[in-house]
Formats: sequence, C-alpha cells, structure tokens
Amino acid sequence: MPQDFFGQIDPPQRLLMGPGPVNAHPRVLRAMAADMLGQFDPEMTSYMNQTMALYRCVFMTENHWTFLIDGTARAGIEAALVSLVEPGARLLIVRAGRFGLLLSEIAQRIGADIRAIDIPWGEVATPTQIEAAIVAHRPQVFACIHGDTSTTMAQPLDGVGEICRRHGVLSYVDATATLGGMAVATDAWGVDVVTGGLQKCMGGPPGSAPITISDRAAAHIMARKHVEAGIRGDDSEDGGRARIGSNYFDLAMIMEYWSDRRLNHHTEATSMLYGAREAARIMLAEGLETRFARHRAAGRAMVAGLRAMGLTVYGQDAYRMTNVTGVYIPDGVDGERVRARMRADFEIEIGTAFGPLAGQIWRIGAMGYNAMKHKVLLTLGALEAVLRQEGYALTSGAAVDAARATYEAL
Amino acid sequence: MPQDFFGQIDPPQRLLMGPGPVNAHPRVLRAMAADMLGQFDPEMTSYMNQTMALYRCVFMTENHWTFLIDGTARAGIEAALVSLVEPGARLLIVRAGRFGLLLSEIAQRIGADIRAIDIPWGEVATPTQIEAAIVAHRPQVFACIHGDTSTTMAQPLDGVGEICRRHGVLSYVDATATLGGMAVATDAWGVDVVTGGLQKCMGGPPGSAPITISDRAAAHIMARKHVEAGIRGDDSEDGGRARIGSNYFDLAMIMEYWSDRRLNHHTEATSMLYGAREAARIMLAEGLETRFARHRAAGRAMVAGLRAMGLTVYGQDAYRMTNVTGVYIPDGVDGERVRARMRADFEIEIGTAFGPLAGQIWRIGAMGYNAMKHKVLLTLGALEAVLRQEGYALTSGAAVDAARATYEAL
Repeated sequence: MPQDFFGQIDPPQRLLMGPGPVNAHPRVLRAMAADMLGQFDPEMTSYMNQTMALYRCVFMTENHWTFLIDGTARAGIEAALVSLVEPGARLLIVRAGRFGLLLSEIAQRIGADIRAIDIPWGEVATPTQIEAAIVAHRPQVFACIHGDTSTTMAQPLDGVGEICRRHGVLSYVDATATLGGMAVATDAWGVDVVTGGLQKCMGGPPGSAPITISDRAAAHIMARKHVEAGIRGDDSEDGGRARIGSNYFDLAMIMEYWSDRRLNHHTEATSMLYGAREAARIMLAEGLETRFARHRAAGRAMVAGLRAMGLTVYGQDAYRMTNVTGVYIPDGVDGERVRARMRADFEIEIGTAFGPLAGQIWRIGAMGYNAMKHKVLLTLGALEAVLRQEGYALTSGAAVDAARATYEAL
Repeated sequence: MPQDFFGQIDPPQRLLMGPGPVNAHPRVLRAMAADMLGQFDPEMTSYMNQTMALYRCVFMTENHWTFLIDGTARAGIEAALVSLVEPGARLLIVRAGRFGLLLSEIAQRIGADIRAIDIPWGEVATPTQIEAAIVAHRPQVFACIHGDTSTTMAQPLDGVGEICRRHGVLSYVDATATLGGMAVATDAWGVDVVTGGLQKCMGGPPGSAPITISDRAAAHIMARKHVEAGIRGDDSEDGGRARIGSNYFDLAMIMEYWSDRRLNHHTEATSMLYGAREAARIMLAEGLETRFARHRAAGRAMVAGLRAMGLTVYGQDAYRMTNVTGVYIPDGVDGERVRARMRADFEIEIGTAFGPLAGQIWRIGAMGYNAMKHKVLLTLGALEAVLRQEGYALTSGAAVDAARATYEAL
C-alpha cells in the first residue's frame, strides 16, 4: 500500500464519446456534493417527491409511480422484470442485440417461460411482427429495448403499447440508452413500465435507474406484495399472487417506500438522488424537444462526418439512434490501436463493440452533455488524424467540413 | 411544476445523530465531484484495483475478492445470500433484531431451507449456541448480523468462523452498521463473506456496498457461474452447480468484471466508487485502531451523558455497539415530539425505533464523521434542553459534564 493510499482521485480530463458512460454535466456533480439528510426527514422526502414529479416529465407520462431504483441501469431492468414476471409466466422478448439477450438472461433466472422475436442485429421488429408473436404466444408480459447500443438501432414503439393492451399483455421497455436523448414517450406509446439510467443521455453518473410504472402494472405488482416480518403490521399486508423473488428489487415494497406511508426498505442513495434530480432539472430547463433536436443534430453531423471520411456507417438510417453511431472499421486498420491512439493523443474515448460486431465496428456516441457541435467536430478531427497516421486514405478536412455543414443547414 | 423546477439542491445543515445515514465526510463528497471515465479505460480499472486493495485493509483481510456492489447496503446482503445459498439449501440465521429478520426475508425469496437461532431483541448468541445449532441443522451457510442497529447490540464473532469451517459450513456476516467504526476482523473471525455500507461508520453516502469473499466461498460461487449469451465464448463458461437466481447480484459475474478479464456486467457506478475509495483512504490514514478508539470514546461519552440525565440505556453494556446507543423514552414524554423539537430547534436528528422497540427507545448514533466529542456534547446538551422543555426532571448540565468527563479520563 503506498504511503498516500494511492493519492487523491484525479482522473484525466477525457472526452467520452463512446456508448456511455459519458462526461457528467458539472451541475449534476455539484448537486451531488450536498450533504446527507435523514431518510425520513421532511426535506429528504420532499426531494424524493420532487424527483418523482421531475421524472414524470422526463418519461413523458402521468404515471404516479415514477421514481428511482438504487443501482445501475441494469438494476432497473431486473427490478422491472422480477416484479412483473411471475415464475412460470410467459414473457415475449424482442431480441435484436446484446441488451435483448440480457432481458432473456435475467428472465431465465426468474424462471419465466421465454418466447422471443429474434431479429438480426441491426434490424428492428415491426408492429405486425410483435402482434403476431403476441397472438401466437399469449404472453403475460412483452419486453423490448428502445435503443440497443450494441447495434445502435432504436426500436420504433408507436402503437406497441396499444397492441399489448388490446391483448391483455403488460409491456416493459428498457430506455437506458435513449432516456434524455430521444423521446421516451411512455404514455403516447401506451407501455406500462419503462426504465432508464443516468449515464448516457441524462448526463449523470451511472448508479441510479429511473423507472415509471402504469397504474395497471402497479396493481399487478401490488398483488405480489409481501412486507418484511421486522416491520409489518399483520398478514393482511400480503397480496394474493406469487411473491417477488427479490427483496431489493421488490417494486411493491419500493413503491411503499416512495409513498406517503414511507415504509422502510433500503436507505435511499442520497447523493445519487441529488444527481438524478439535478439531471432532470437540466433536461426540463432545456426543454424536451430542444434536447431531442440537439441529439439529432449531433448524430446527423457524426454520420455525415464519418461518411465524408469514406467510412461505412453500420445499420439502417431509418432506425438509427440519434445519440450513438456504429461505423465499420476499415480493412487493414487495427480498431483497438485506433482507439488507443485516440485516447493517448487526443484524450477522446470511442467505443468498441460486443458479440458478432466485436472487431467489426466502433461505436461513437454524442450523448447528454456531449451531444454538442464542438465535441462532434473535435472527435471527427481527431479520428481523421489517427486514421491518416494508420495509413488509411482519406480527404483531409472533409469529415469536419461535412459535419459542420449539417449544422449550418439546420 | 414550479418555474425553477424546484430549485437547486440545498439541504439544511443538519447534524445526523441517528442510526444512519450520517453526515458524509466532506472529502468523500469532494472526491465524488470528479468527472466520469470510460469503464474499461486504464485509469478506471486502476481505480477499481486500488479500491480492492483499500477495502482489504478496511475488512482486515487478505481476501483477493474484495470490491463493491453497486447498490445500498441491502444490495450487498442480497448479493451475498443469493450467490452463496442455493435454492433448497439449508441456511442457519441468527435472528436477534430487525436485520436478522431481513436475512430471513431475503433467504425465503431465494427458496432456502431456513433454520434460525431466535434470540430476544437486545441479546446476542453465544458460540456454544451457534455450534449446537450447526450440529443440529447441518446448514450449507451460516449468516448473522454483526451490529444490528435495531437493537444496538453487536454479535461477538470471535471463533465463529472457525466453528463454521470445522463443520464445513460457509459463513456470512453483515457488517453494514459497524464497518469503519468497530473492528470487522474478517480473517481473524475466519468468516467467508462480509458486506458493509458507506453511510454509517465509513462516513460516506448510501449507495455502495463493499464486500469481501474468501477463496473457498469464491470457489463455491464460481461453480454457480453462468455467462450472458450476449458476450460469452462457449458453454464451457458454465459451472456445475445451481445457477444464481439474479443477474445483477451474480457475484460470479461481478468477480469476472473486477478481474483482469474485465468481463462486462453492469457499468460500475463511477461516482460511488470514487466516494468509497476516498472513505477508505480517510479511514486508513486515520489508522484502524485510532478510528475504533474514536468510536468507542464517543459511544462511552454518549452512554455516560444519557445516564447522567437519569435516562435508562437499552440493552447490555457488554455487547453494546460503540457507535449507536438505544435509550428508553421516559414515561410521560412524547418521543416523536422530542425528535421533532431536536430537529426544529437544534437541527439535530436522533433516531426512532422499529418493531417491538417502536415508541420505547430512541437510537442515538455517533458514527464515522460524527463520532466526535463536540458532536456528542452538542447532542446531549440539545436533548437535555428539549427534555427540560417537555417537563422531564433532570439536573441541568449533568449530561454534558458526564460525557466530557469520560473524554478527560481517556
């Protein structure tokens, strides 16, 4: 152990243009420096209620049950699935990338009867496909990913909630990678449960998972309620359906904690709550439409710049996430060496890829605080310089010019 | 929604002398203001490795597998139990307060065959009782709470790990409320898995759960390993034992993430990692023995002060946690009104109680950054003033004098 116990925290000032986490907005980090409160102090419960109100706007919903799960985005996914899907119940999942597979992985452990719409990476499911699969499989719950960063594609969700309701199916959407960057239109989609994270387009650190739950999903979950022996009144507290297989992720208990009843569950992660609250305030002050347009502009500029370098952008333009772009690594170029040089010479991080796309594409993000013109231009300029150094033939200056032109055309 | 979206975060400057969360050390909050890093950037993985080394000292262990669970202290408990205890396997739990009951609650959801040593609140189990129960029940895992804040008693653990090993039983200890304040002597106790939290004696915010795992427990857990379909190589990745029932809390996968292999699981909660790292640095710079002595001094002064007011301290002196004290609410005094006045007039929070002790005792903490002479004296002085106002007969000044005398006698 070194004498100074490894020294003060002092990360390099790096521009994070990967698929997330990205640089946090400085206001979020400053908010997190506020001191603790007792978890049932009126100021703390007031901050919790404000956070609920703020995230209703973020999720574009009237859902009362809109709050935070204390863990990373993946904690929100598991809380939603373990609370919605009963052991043995049928779950229909759209699997079109790594995070669709993650939904399966989590659901297997719950003991769900999993049915899948398997889509090639880079494509999306159509409403017709979804409805046909619902009719064929009659699931209790339908689940999909909104924006799967592994493929950079966004699943269209217009009408999907309505299809599910018509067939009596509960619906869940993971919006970790899009919340705060693209419209996560919970009520317009008509979906029941949506979860997100802070570390992508919300411009905060990883470690808190916002969630919203419709009244009908909440009723389903409350029927699975069970109150801890150490604090419960009597057995009338217990609901009739199969008990939720996790205590930490028991949304019925977490709803009681976020209700006026304030039934003790975990101890709310105070600093992360402060950060989540501030991230939402920044988003609402900017305005949702302005913020989505800022992400669209950054994504469009990135695509134009990459194409002007002669690179091939991955996937379909029609379904592209606005906030992260997949681009093929050109033949003869060592993708990892390019990433290392970007980091070493320019202090810019771009992303690698998973599964079938590993070694095939880079993933370049422009999310939250980083979905800005200057950061897109700096990234393209740096990538051009590194590719030139690697012997890749390109027209110098074309990438930045093309990206800038898309901004000027707005 | 108000025009300013509820305004900037601005909690009152309150002294938190309850059972936790308590005020965070300012250095911890400052460390958390550092910006994000990519999760596989070498600086980030270096911070992760440093955090492992620092928490080996905090847990007084040589265990390689010593890291953080991304959630509150309760997340650490669930990760330990769901990863150790197979469905249907026998688990022996010491239940002597609310958090012993929580262990049962979590284990029920895992499907464990639960056996308990039920102890009246305010008492502790003896090694003889524990060994007799192990012999009688032959569990796969033994679990207990080190310091249960619901009763303010600390379970003695000398020799307990050795008893478990002799009988081939894996052991788990929850040290949420004692880590950083009392000796959590993982290796000396010989226990296999210990978890903690930041928000009590570590002087940080809630939201990160340090954990340490012995090699034999790690081998047991790795035999339950399963790698996600989206990122795995082939089926040789899967171990032979019953799969862990949670993805987020799958310690086998989390160990792979904290290993040099860096197999992607969740996205590490960067700010909470920075905070946990700084909390450990502060503890090690202070010195473990000095820090434990500081908590002992504060606890002793609190007890002396409360008794000098004529109040009756709850539980047995021999097993009292040094960092939180239970004290009976005197007859004719409204406990909640006293707490409200402490907060309104003095900006000091003291704790209420749960279950059979609700309405019977207050719980007054002196943890981490708050285990300091001046904070103990200020709390006693304020409590005396409030009790006097409530018509409780006491000798003015006696509490502070008695507490100060214990410091002067050191």
